[in-house]
Amino acid sequence: MNRIVQGLRSNPLLWLLAAVPAVFVGEHLAPESHTMLFVLAVCAIVPLAALLSHATESVAARTGDAVGGLLNATLGNLTELVIAITALRAGMFNLVKASIAGAIVTNSLFMLGMAFLLGGLKHRVQEYNPDTARLQASMLFLAAVALLVPSVIGASDRPEVAATVQQLSIGLAVLLLVTYVLGLLFSLKTHKDVFASASGEGHGEDEHLWPMKVAVIALAGITVLVALVSEIFVESVQYAAITFGMTPAFVGFIVVAIVGAAAEMTSAFAAARKNRLDLSVGIALGSSSQIALFVAPVLVLLSLFIAPSPMDLQFWPGAVIMVMLATLTVLFVANTGKSAWYVGVMLLVVYVTFAMTLYLLPPESQVPG
Amino acid sequence: MNRIVQGLRSNPLLWLLAAVPAVFVGEHLAPESHTMLFVLAVCAIVPLAALLSHATESVAARTGDAVGGLLNATLGNLTELVIAITALRAGMFNLVKASIAGAIVTNSLFMLGMAFLLGGLKHRVQEYNPDTARLQASMLFLAAVALLVPSVIGASDRPEVAATVQQLSIGLAVLLLVTYVLGLLFSLKTHKDVFASASGEGHGEDEHLWPMKVAVIALAGITVLVALVSEIFVESVQYAAITFGMTPAFVGFIVVAIVGAAAEMTSAFAAARKNRLDLSVGIALGSSSQIALFVAPVLVLLSLFIAPSPMDLQFWPGAVIMVMLATLTVLFVANTGKSAWYVGVMLLVVYVTFAMTLYLLPPESQVPG
Amino acid sequence: MNRIVQGLRSNPLLWLLAAVPAVFVGEHLAPESHTMLFVLAVCAIVPLAALLSHATESVAARTGDAVGGLLNATLGNLTELVIAITALRAGMFNLVKASIAGAIVTNSLFMLGMAFLLGGLKHRVQEYNPDTARLQASMLFLAAVALLVPSVIGASDRPEVAATVQQLSIGLAVLLLVTYVLGLLFSLKTHKDVFASASGEGHGEDEHLWPMKVAVIALAGITVLVALVSEIFVESVQYAAITFGMTPAFVGFIVVAIVGAAAEMTSAFAAARKNRLDLSVGIALGSSSQIALFVAPVLVLLSLFIAPSPMDLQFWPGAVIMVMLATLTVLFVANTGKSAWYVGVMLLVVYVTFAMTLYLLPPESQVPG
Repeated sequence: MNRIVQGLRSNPLLWLLAAVPAVFVGEHLAPESHTMLFVLAVCAIVPLAALLSHATESVAARTGDAVGGLLNATLGNLTELVIAITALRAGMFNLVKASIAGAIVTNSLFMLGMAFLLGGLKHRVQEYNPDTARLQASMLFLAAVALLVPSVIGASDRPEVAATVQQLSIGLAVLLLVTYVLGLLFSLKTHKDVFASASGEGHGEDEHLWPMKVAVIALAGITVLVALVSEIFVESVQYAAITFGMTPAFVGFIVVAIVGAAAEMTSAFAAARKNRLDLSVGIALGSSSQIALFVAPVLVLLSLFIAPSPMDLQFWPGAVIMVMLATLTVLFVANTGKSAWYVGVMLLVVYVTFAMTLYLLPPESQVPG
Repeated sequence: MNRIVQGLRSNPLLWLLAAVPAVFVGEHLAPESHTMLFVLAVCAIVPLAALLSHATESVAARTGDAVGGLLNATLGNLTELVIAITALRAGMFNLVKASIAGAIVTNSLFMLGMAFLLGGLKHRVQEYNPDTARLQASMLFLAAVALLVPSVIGASDRPEVAATVQQLSIGLAVLLLVTYVLGLLFSLKTHKDVFASASGEGHGEDEHLWPMKVAVIALAGITVLVALVSEIFVESVQYAAITFGMTPAFVGFIVVAIVGAAAEMTSAFAAARKNRLDLSVGIALGSSSQIALFVAPVLVLLSLFIAPSPMDLQFWPGAVIMVMLATLTVLFVANTGKSAWYVGVMLLVVYVTFAMTLYLLPPESQVPG
Repeated sequence: MNRIVQGLRSNPLLWLLAAVPAVFVGEHLAPESHTMLFVLAVCAIVPLAALLSHATESVAARTGDAVGGLLNATLGNLTELVIAITALRAGMFNLVKASIAGAIVTNSLFMLGMAFLLGGLKHRVQEYNPDTARLQASMLFLAAVALLVPSVIGASDRPEVAATVQQLSIGLAVLLLVTYVLGLLFSLKTHKDVFASASGEGHGEDEHLWPMKVAVIALAGITVLVALVSEIFVESVQYAAITFGMTPAFVGFIVVAIVGAAAEMTSAFAAARKNRLDLSVGIALGSSSQIALFVAPVLVLLSLFIAPSPMDLQFWPGAVIMVMLATLTVLFVANTGKSAWYVGVMLLVVYVTFAMTLYLLPPESQVPG
């Protein structure tokens, strides 16, 4: 994962850091300029996310393979987690759920598809470890099943079902977390060699990493910054949606998901161009399955303590269908260990189908999340 | 594709050409004898379709690989397209949609299943290029997703949804066409070698092809004939259904689909018997994905100009389920590159399940298409 | 299959045979103690099922490969069949349907998952014949499609649909039986070698088998005993459910399915520990597909003669979704021919998701089966 942030110093995204002070000043001076605050918050989150993942990398690289892998696996989606926690505390469950489903769909279709496409435009045929892709896609499928079940049951209107869905959501959250931890044990410990990269990467760019002390302080500091900016982002996002003529579902699914994952995307795309497709697949699918099996259940359990009321796992049926179809697409398309540009196109077409639908859907027929 | 029509001259189907004048005479003398006209129209379309595909082959063979491949890809389902355009102009959207969904299901389950079965009865194990099958099946899956989304949304009754579905249908039609064109670019141009036949076919039967001039004139002339016969077919088909005790959904899905693809079927079955399974798979799945990614969107876009009102992509939920299940069946069953007779049986069982359901379904609960 | 019951003599399950006389005495002395009768009936069925499968094995081993295979294939789920026939005669269609769907789900997720997990805890990576797994999983998929179609149609409330569903169920039952018979012909006769075990098993434990005469008498006698105990089981099961606080769906899906398959499970788990994964996969998936393609259609056809009214194939939508998701899980997870412990975990997680849902679901929102 180190090379995710390779060349971070020369990362043009970092110019966007200027937006971080700007957004706080803006919030103070013009708290009603939601659209401006939204744009500034997006501009601020993207470089902060990049720094956050660099800090995580730096700590991970210095703590040995097992602990480092664990750190990467739990902090890898810290930006998404912080944004979601902010929305959770505000009781905006629809936004939280839309951003969970949207992050799964965006990472597995858009991030992976774009990586396949960009890599394929440069390299005729690219290879990756199909076992890794299959494991991550199967974990995603499990999670999609776990999301499907309460949503199907919850479709009923009767009040006793609501209580059941809440209980079931807590049970499933625990089940998904256990599955996630066992998955880490499997891929980082007992069967580590099976998931080795097909291209046999080295650790050439360790020199870019920060020293341990700097990294830990940065990790803490940037997380606080992301949390502060997230608050402005979450407040302004729905207003901005109206200004830009976007439906709430489109905002939750597409905009929040892309903002949250922008840093990982630049890494995944760069790796694909360098013919390191294992890294791209690992970032894209690892990120999706981490959201589904780690971030989503953590949010359900956290909601018991920090949200105005407990959040369940009952999603908007459209969201469940999209997550399920995205998972099936990945399972069918990314299971051979070989890729070419059109494989990327196929993943992107499914994504554009969803994005187009969410954009055009009349707002009243959406219960995003 | 040349060998599709190998031995066309000795093709017993051509005797059916006698039905072509008979159907026009019949229409003139007894315009109310719908059942007779229906039978004559079916008998006339089958050999015309065979000639049409021979003419397409002949032109394609003389225009070089890239242009020829393109011609085959766009004119390969000309019969289905002409029949559908006739129904579209008459505003019979249910018939158009049922025949689109039916053609996808019939070609991918019945044509492919029968080819696997007939080939497998003669040859113990047959091989084909799994990459071709997987690409076509994945393209079908994309199209099924694109058909699923507006149908799920359109299930709502509210009027503003209807406008959305119409807009979305046009957007998805354009998206599917772009995907189709990129797919041609991929399989005919940039990655041509990946899709080479497993059995390394030659071009031995070029001698059967018509000279260019004859072929172009035949292509134009037969298309006009098919269009004229289609008009009688489309008019008489629903009456004939009642006479034969068939439900409208059964007619659209099964009868129209089999009539439209009869010529390709004889070619696909003959190829399978000759152990040229790549050709059979190419015809069956190529045809399905062409209907889904080329014919269907072209009809949506054409409807803006030639139909009484614009046609959308909202299908009867039963049709969407069948297309999705047919696609999944192909993805699971035809992805190994090896076949035996029972693989054909499995595809046919799914087809018979659908046909039986459509035959027994009370007409009122069907909104075919 | 002989080694399924290897070491049956030393099988601790057989101590449970003491429950057989106990259940009959209990029924006579305390016919109202449903919970006690239920527990005794469960304890009695488990060892009887083990003896039944040993008797079947013994007969099969002495009748040659083809007939023996057929016997195993038809009598392999005799316990489930006898229990279901008892419920069928009592007109308890919901219990019959829940136990069919539950047996498919339990055998393909719990039995296979547990075998993968137990085998994987002892052996790092295990291999099995992927062709067998794929054939059985594809057959399951066919059956799931055949169950899906009448259930989707039957969701409508109109009375003419009910007649259609009944007709369709009979048609599909015949179709599934034909598919099953052709599948036996394929795997036992025409393409036997394709499905040979990856580990090349021998027939080392034939000495454990009973002589033909003993085996045939045992087969008949034990079947009668199972039938008698089943009557007590079926009568007491719903009462017991209430006592234990279990929903009817949970009882049908989970409890009946596990009791019916307990004998096969001990064999499948033992085989996995001995690194004979082909045997485990064969028992688990063979059993699932046999229930779907043989037991279910036989029950539909038998219901015409022995049940108070004909039984159709219309299942509770939740049951159809679970069968379909279980089938997809197996198709995605068990298609590589290699297994490790986490593959078992993934199958079990899907099973636990279903079990948890059925356990928590308020009874009124369940139409089990």
